[in-house]
This record gives sequence, structure tokens and C-alpha cells, in this order.
Amino acid sequence: MKGFFVVIDLGGTNLRGAAIDLKGNFLARSSSPSPAPLPKREGMVKLREEIEGLLERGFSQGYKPLGIGLGIAGVLSRDGVLTQSPNLQNLAGVHLNEELDDSFSLPVKMDNDANMYTIGEGWRGAAQGVKDFCCLTLGTGVGGGIVMGGELYRGAYGTAGEIGHMVIDEDGLPCYCGNRGCLETYISASGIVKKAAELGRKVDSSYELYEAAHRGDRLAQEVFGEIGRYLGVCMANLVNMLSPAMIVLGGKVSGAWDYFVPSALEEMKRRAFRYPVERVEVVKGMLGDDAALWGCTYLVSQDLGINLE
Amino acid sequence: MKGFFVVIDLGGTNLRGAAIDLKGNFLARSSSPSPAPLPKREGMVKLREEIEGLLERGFSQGYKPLGIGLGIAGVLSRDGVLTQSPNLQNLAGVHLNEELDDSFSLPVKMDNDANMYTIGEGWRGAAQGVKDFCCLTLGTGVGGGIVMGGELYRGAYGTAGEIGHMVIDEDGLPCYCGNRGCLETYISASGIVKKAAELGRKVDSSYELYEAAHRGDRLAQEVFGEIGRYLGVCMANLVNMLSPAMIVLGGKVSGAWDYFVPSALEEMKRRAFRYPVERVEVVKGMLGDDAALWGCTYLVSQDLGINLE
Repeated sequence: MKGFFVVIDLGGTNLRGAAIDLKGNFLARSSSPSPAPLPKREGMVKLREEIEGLLERGFSQGYKPLGIGLGIAGVLSRDGVLTQSPNLQNLAGVHLNEELDDSFSLPVKMDNDANMYTIGEGWRGAAQGVKDFCCLTLGTGVGGGIVMGGELYRGAYGTAGEIGHMVIDEDGLPCYCGNRGCLETYISASGIVKKAAELGRKVDSSYELYEAAHRGDRLAQEVFGEIGRYLGVCMANLVNMLSPAMIVLGGKVSGAWDYFVPSALEEMKRRAFRYPVERVEVVKGMLGDDAALWGCTYLVSQDLGINLE
Repeated sequence: MKGFFVVIDLGGTNLRGAAIDLKGNFLARSSSPSPAPLPKREGMVKLREEIEGLLERGFSQGYKPLGIGLGIAGVLSRDGVLTQSPNLQNLAGVHLNEELDDSFSLPVKMDNDANMYTIGEGWRGAAQGVKDFCCLTLGTGVGGGIVMGGELYRGAYGTAGEIGHMVIDEDGLPCYCGNRGCLETYISASGIVKKAAELGRKVDSSYELYEAAHRGDRLAQEVFGEIGRYLGVCMANLVNMLSPAMIVLGGKVSGAWDYFVPSALEEMKRRAFRYPVERVEVVKGMLGDDAALWGCTYLVSQDLGINLE
């Protein structure tokens, strides 16, 4: 009987999952709204049902479940407690490792969703073979991941990589995380809507602004240009602090690449030390929405000593 | 014949050196003003003379020179070119490795001075045995070093660790490095003098302000309190990004610890994610001015496969 994994990407907006066999084929996929608005108990029920459904769909095709990988938006402790989560406040404090172990009696590997994204892009995406790189996922929130010497860096307490919550203006806007002036307050989907209003354009979503920019609307393009400058400040900080070989940008907002990345690069180059900034590559993620699912697959398979083909 | 190393800490203000035997005893020490104000050629002559003098002083005591360690304030490439240096602009572009190899025919190990400081504090200072920590050296400039998993992190291009040039206010004061709003613009010796003036107190040096604070001068104490808040923003960024077990603060300014660290800690705790920030330790460096010399000693001895006693 061939084996498979269930992998889950749980964010503030979407709950996505897949059953993946040992050749890296998708046996099944699922996608539904995030349980973020539900109370804790119901939220966990929804997560378990999602996993259960994928386990059954793999099993019914004649595969044996080997493990579960979970990427989740929030600050996870090394032992699997969701200690804090601006986008999944309902699940804060849950000991996810215990709860899922008890439910399924399968090995569970979990990490922050942006870390999973980073592992995915490093494994079979834009940063394949790159030993030192950073990822930023630009979406509902701004996630980050740091790879050093070929390994994802989790720090002393497992929570490293929160690049979206790097302060770039100490007196800036309040952030959901409790801090102020974080990159996320400028370049997240809602930050973009705010910046547009500030520059005189009322839109309901960053996507609406993207469409306007795409139609050639100068003001909309200008808003993205401004947003890009904030990203450039953050990338200059990454270059000065970590001297990465590559910075990978992903997430929904990265679809507007042409409108914000030129100003981001300009700002980064203006600010960072010349030697490392002339060498760093800034690229778009290659795996799209599946990056975190691939990261989950990698982590859980490695943990079990299985090398996927 | 017993062996020894010559180790040098070359900053923007001082040029300090030592001859150290394999038991870690100082056979000789030297200290003189930095060659920063000299033209390139004369600057290099002074550096070579300093090394030469220490080599002779060790040799004359019956020891054999084994290698040279050099910590230098600036951005070094992996192959030993000083690519950029706000505080040693005269030596920018010098291929230090080649020049020193040619002069002395001894193995030379070099790194950024704050990296040497960090290695020193990790080896036999405040961070002994700590696997994940950051150092900040608060002096003429603000240097930084990052240790991850027990190793100094240099990034893809050898220049990582410039924590002093992390932007914490994207629209802040211009920095010597070409950027603006860097931590260094607030908490370096000259940044402190500027902040004092802004708050209505004219002083000639940060030391003068420290003395006033020490005498109980409320305004002087307030200036340090304000300065501490900027440091706190930077430390919150470190905690969110790197989740270190420890942050070591050193350098001359750290003498004013009691006046700026309480507000720095408060600010850091207010801003960073709870789980990692409740766990990080913030401590004072233990090795003072010798930290970088110890770092040099460690690097050059490790490179030669020699374990000091």
C-alpha cells in the first residue's frame, strides 16, 4: 500500500489542504474559508474535519496516511502552541500538536505558514539550491521566513522570521500585532487600501486598486509605487542585517509586481550597503498558493526519513 | 618555542592591539588613535607598524608568531576587501587580506569589528554557551553581530550583522552610511548629543551627558530614556525576526546602562511578540574593550586548528 501525506495551509482568509503521495502527486485538494471567525471549539472542529476529509480521500484511493503537515498563520512555540496570532485570534493558546496528535494518531509537523512557504520555495521553487535567502508573503498579513546556510531559521524559541512585523517607522500606524509601524501596516492588503485613501483614492480592496493600475490609472500605480518604497526599506534592513543571496516575494499582492517592485528595488538600493545590495537577487515566488503545502510536505516527509521523488 | 597571535581592533576612534599567547595571556598591548584621519597609504603604514610592533614584542619574549587577527569597522567582503566603511573612509576599497599577507607572511583572519566583539562575548563573555544571540556595540558607531546555532552568521556575501544600520524610522535622520533613520543615527555617541540638543541640552559629548545623568540631572536622564526607546524598537525587531535567546549590549555607551536600558526593555516588550520577548535575556557585555581582541584570537586560532587553553 502506497503512502501519502495530508498537508494544510491555514491562514486568516483561507483554509487550503491537499493529500499528496510520495511522488509529489496531488491525490486530492480542498479549499474553504478560514475558520478564523469561528469560536475556538468550532474552529478546531472545522480544522479536524478538513484533515479527516483529506485522509479519507487519500485512503479511498488505496493509499495509507503517513503523516500530517500544518502551516498556520501565527506565532508557534517549538512544542506546538499557537502563542499569538493576529489573523487567527480564535485559536490563540491552542496546543495544536497535542490536539491533532490525539485526534489522528499520526505524526504531525507544524510551523508558521510563511515558514512553510519558505521551505516550499527553497525545496522546489524560486530559491532551489540557494543557501541564504528570505521570503516575504504579501497577502492578508505579511509573513516571512529566513533560511540560513540551507536551513530554515527558527531562533531560540521557534518564532523567528516575522519579517512582516519589522518596525520601519517607530511612530507609524498601529498594527494588529500590538506593535506600530510594522511593514505589515503598509503593504498588507488592508494597508494598501489605507494608503490609497490617504492619496485620495477610495477602493474596497487591494485587488480593485490592482485592476485600476492595470487599466493604466496613474494614481493607482502611484499608490503601489509608494507601497513599494516601504517594502524597499524592509529589504534594505534584510540586506544589511542578513546579507541574503536572494529575497523571494510571494502572496496575493505580489501579483501587482510591476507596480511596486521597481520602487522597492530603487529604495532598497538607495539605502543598503553597496556590496551586499549589488549582489542580492529579488525574485517572485514560483509555487503560488501551493508553496506552503509543499513546505508542509517537505517537513513531514523529512521528519519520517522519507525522500520524495 | 611557544606561539602567539597578534590581534588588532581597528575602529573609527581607536586602534587597539595585543600579543596573546596560547594560554590566553597578554604578552603585550598597544593602543593609539585610529588612522581614520590619515590618507590611505599612511593609514595602512600605521596599521602595519602597529602589527609589526606587537610581533616584535612577542618575539622578543621568546614566542613565535603564528597568525594575525584583525577586527575592522566596516563592511568586509569574504575575500577581505573593505568595501565600505562610514568610520574608516580612508581605507575603503583596500584589499586588506592581500596587503597584510604580503607584509607579514602569516595567516591573517579578519572580520568586522562588531563580529569580532560578538565572537569574543560568545567564547568567553556574556553569551558563553548561548547558541542564538545578537550583540550591539554602542560607541562611535553602532555595530552588530548575529550568532545562530552557535555560529557567527555572515550571510551570502560576508557582510551580515549590521544591526546598527537597521532603519527604524524610514523618514529619519540621514546616516553616515548613506541610509536614513538607522538605529545608529539615534544611539551612537553623536546621535545622543543631537538628541540632547533637540530636548534642550547642549553637550559636547555623550560622556558629558552621562556625567550629568549620573549627578542626578533629570533632563540628561530623560535624554538617555528617549535614546533607550529607539534601542527598544530595534531589539523588538530582532526578537520578531530572529527570536534570540540573548541580546548583548556593549560599547562605551553601555556604561550609561541604568539610564537607557529600562526604557529600552519597556519599549521592546511593548512591541515584540509576547512568547519570544518574555524569554529573551538582555545583558551587558562582560569583556569590555577586550571583547573584539578575544574574538580575533578565537578566529585566528580556530583557523589554525589550535585550541586555546
